[in-house]
Order: sequence, then C-alpha cells, then structure tokens
Amino acid sequence: MPNDDEPTAAPPAHSRPPGRGQFIAFEGGDGVGKSTQVGLLAAHLRGRGREVVVTREPGDSRIGAEVRAILLDGGELDVRAEALLFAADRADHVTSLVSPALQRGAVVVTDRYVDSSIAYQGVGRGLGIDQVAALSEFATQGLRPDLTVVLDLEASERRRRMENLGQFDRIEREPDHVHERIRQAFLDLAGREPDRYLVVDAGREADQIAAEIAAAAEKVIE
Amino acid sequence: MPNDDEPTAAPPAHSRPPGRGQFIAFEGGDGVGKSTQVGLLAAHLRGRGREVVVTREPGDSRIGAEVRAILLDGGELDVRAEALLFAADRADHVTSLVSPALQRGAVVVTDRYVDSSIAYQGVGRGLGIDQVAALSEFATQGLRPDLTVVLDLEASERRRRMENLGQFDRIEREPDHVHERIRQAFLDLAGREPDRYLVVDAGREADQIAAEIAAAAEKVIE
Repeated sequence: MPNDDEPTAAPPAHSRPPGRGQFIAFEGGDGVGKSTQVGLLAAHLRGRGREVVVTREPGDSRIGAEVRAILLDGGELDVRAEALLFAADRADHVTSLVSPALQRGAVVVTDRYVDSSIAYQGVGRGLGIDQVAALSEFATQGLRPDLTVVLDLEASERRRRMENLGQFDRIEREPDHVHERIRQAFLDLAGREPDRYLVVDAGREADQIAAEIAAAAEKVIE
Repeated sequence: MPNDDEPTAAPPAHSRPPGRGQFIAFEGGDGVGKSTQVGLLAAHLRGRGREVVVTREPGDSRIGAEVRAILLDGGELDVRAEALLFAADRADHVTSLVSPALQRGAVVVTDRYVDSSIAYQGVGRGLGIDQVAALSEFATQGLRPDLTVVLDLEASERRRRMENLGQFDRIEREPDHVHERIRQAFLDLAGREPDRYLVVDAGREADQIAAEIAAAAEKVIE
C-alpha cells in the first residue's frame, strides 16, 4: 500500500481487446439523480439494439448483499474495514458480472464504482485518496470505465429537490457540508482525466441531462 | 498496492507504549494443534495472574461471522474478494478487540493473524506475498505481534494424527501437497524475523510443546 505522498501508480496494462463491450459508470453524491439517468441511458442504448447490463455497487450478489447489511447495521464499523468490504464487493462484482458481460460485447452501466469509494472513504472519511485507489486497483485488476459520468449538483439545489420529494432521510444521511466535500472529490477526479469523464450539470430537466449523456455514450461506443 | 518485485515497505512506526499488553499470534497449517496450544498458553498465563484475551481470525464479531459464512458458502468466490474479506475482518478485529485489550494491559493470544493470509491467499492461492502483506498492513495499521508461534508439522505426520482422530474432512480441506506449501510459507516468514518468531516442532507431546511456548511467551512479557 503506497503512502499518500507517493505518486499514484501508472494505469496497468489491463485493457479489453477492441470490439468488446463498453463500461460506463455513474458517479455523484446521494440524491443527484443517478438511478434515473442510469435507467434512461440503458433504455436509450437498448432502443439502438445494444445488450445493456445495468448494475450497481454495492452489488446484488451474495457478497454485495452481505456488505449492504453490514454497512446498514454497522454505525460503529471501523473505516478501514468498511473500505475493505467495499473493495471485496467490487472484486466479486467485476469478476462475476462486469467482466463476463464486457467479454460477450454488452454495454455495462453501473450506478457507482471506484470513484465513490475514493470520494466517500478516501476523502469523506479521511482514509486518503491513494490508499483507497490502491485497494480498488487490487480489487478490479485495473479495470476502468470507458466513460465515467459525474452528476454534479450544488448542495442547496440538492436539498431543495429532496425536500420537494419528502426524502428527508437522504438529506440526513449526507448533510450539505458533507455533500459539498464529496462533490468536490468527484470533480477533482474528473479534472485529472477529462477525456474519460463527462461532468453533467444535474440541476436541469432529466431529459436534457439524458440527451447529453446519450451523446457522450454514443461517442464512446462508436 | 506495490508490485511483487518492489521492496516491501519498512515496518511503520506503530508501536505501543512500554508497559502495555503483549500480543501473541499462533500460526500454522490446518490440524497442527493451534487451538490446543492457544488454550494451554492462556491457562498458563492466567495462572500467573495475567488477564488473557483469547481470540481468532476470522473473528467472532458480526463481520467475522459474515466472513466465515461467505467463505464456507463461496466455493467460487473470487480470490481477491476473499483476501479483501479477510482483511476487512482483520481491521475490525484489531480496532474493536485487539487494540483495546492491549491498551488496558492484557495479553492477547490469537489463533491465526496476518501470516495465515500471506500463506493461504498470498502463496496458496497465488496472489503474491507483498500484495497480501500490503492489505494486512492497511487493515492493521501496522500492528504486529510481539511473538508469533509457528506450529510446524510435516504433512505425513499431520495426516497420521488426523486419521487417528477421524478428522478426514480436515485432510480433505488441506491435502498434503497444499499443506507442505503453506508450511513452507510460514517457515519463510519466520526466517525473515527470527527474533520475533518461535518455530516449534509440533510433532511432540502437547505438554512438551506448551512448555517451550510458555518459556518464549514469558521472555516477551518480562
């Protein structure tokens, strides 16, 4: 495990052969509309004849379900244990679901991936970006999305929406000042690799946002 | 995460203040008598008035129980996911049980610790020693035993004992050629830090072995 002041390792030589499927990740804080946009993109791509596998992290596998249960239950869970559980779920998710789907040529669309761990555990809980990135590198064997969509929303706008929807528990879970730190972490990651990221203003109408994402996804797919 | 050909990081500055408790780990393959010797050492030290906390990995906590269930169930579990689950359990174990007990001055005796992960996942399942060591370093924040006891037994002798005891399932779980590789991994780790290890010939009578271990433990404690 590198220290935080060591340079991050170069991307490994883990690449898919040309002509295989594409991997698209959605990232962003709680309540910015990720699941809505995942669904709209999947519908759009299916309408164009592609096989689309929609998934999420923590996953729906046996281990992902256990991780969810432990996380929901464990208010006092050690932050390192939490990060390692997310990484374990990710390793299982990539091996059992993502990689096989990519190998048969599908588009895989995931609701959260590596960047969520970096933002929530690395920045939000203070474990350090490079430490958490190294765990994910180990877990995924370096598999990176072809496109990462960051849904970006100011805390005040997010709060307004959540209150309109009556989702006070989600505001509670991620209060404004936490949301802003998490939000900045996603923007920083996007700034490091602008060619692989699409940062979307999530404050607009859902269909406007969806059109922008669909255009970027088609560019990656073609 | 370092590559296997990078040098292993130097031990971090994670040390307990003098006068605090002592941490003793038992390591070795399946069926070499670890739990018997853990019990005998604990009884010996209690007889000398010490508080002794006996524990094991995977642990008895919520997360350890889940890890056990997943591992028992998951014949097909990804090897990286498995290593990360063990590390998650270890992080929780150290934070919630081992460190608090050491801080109040107890002797903590654990049945398996970091070396088991290095031997089983790093060597046995081919993940690489340095990769698995780095996960454990992250999980434990560098907490190392004051004494690690390796119970060493040849495969043929282990098999003879297991057959006498009717424990054919344990022979099945760790066949002779696997046992010899795991055994060698423990011996290699002991060879790197002879001052911190005691390698014990586990082919003798239990009370002879216990006396040798008790003497080494007392040296560490005094």
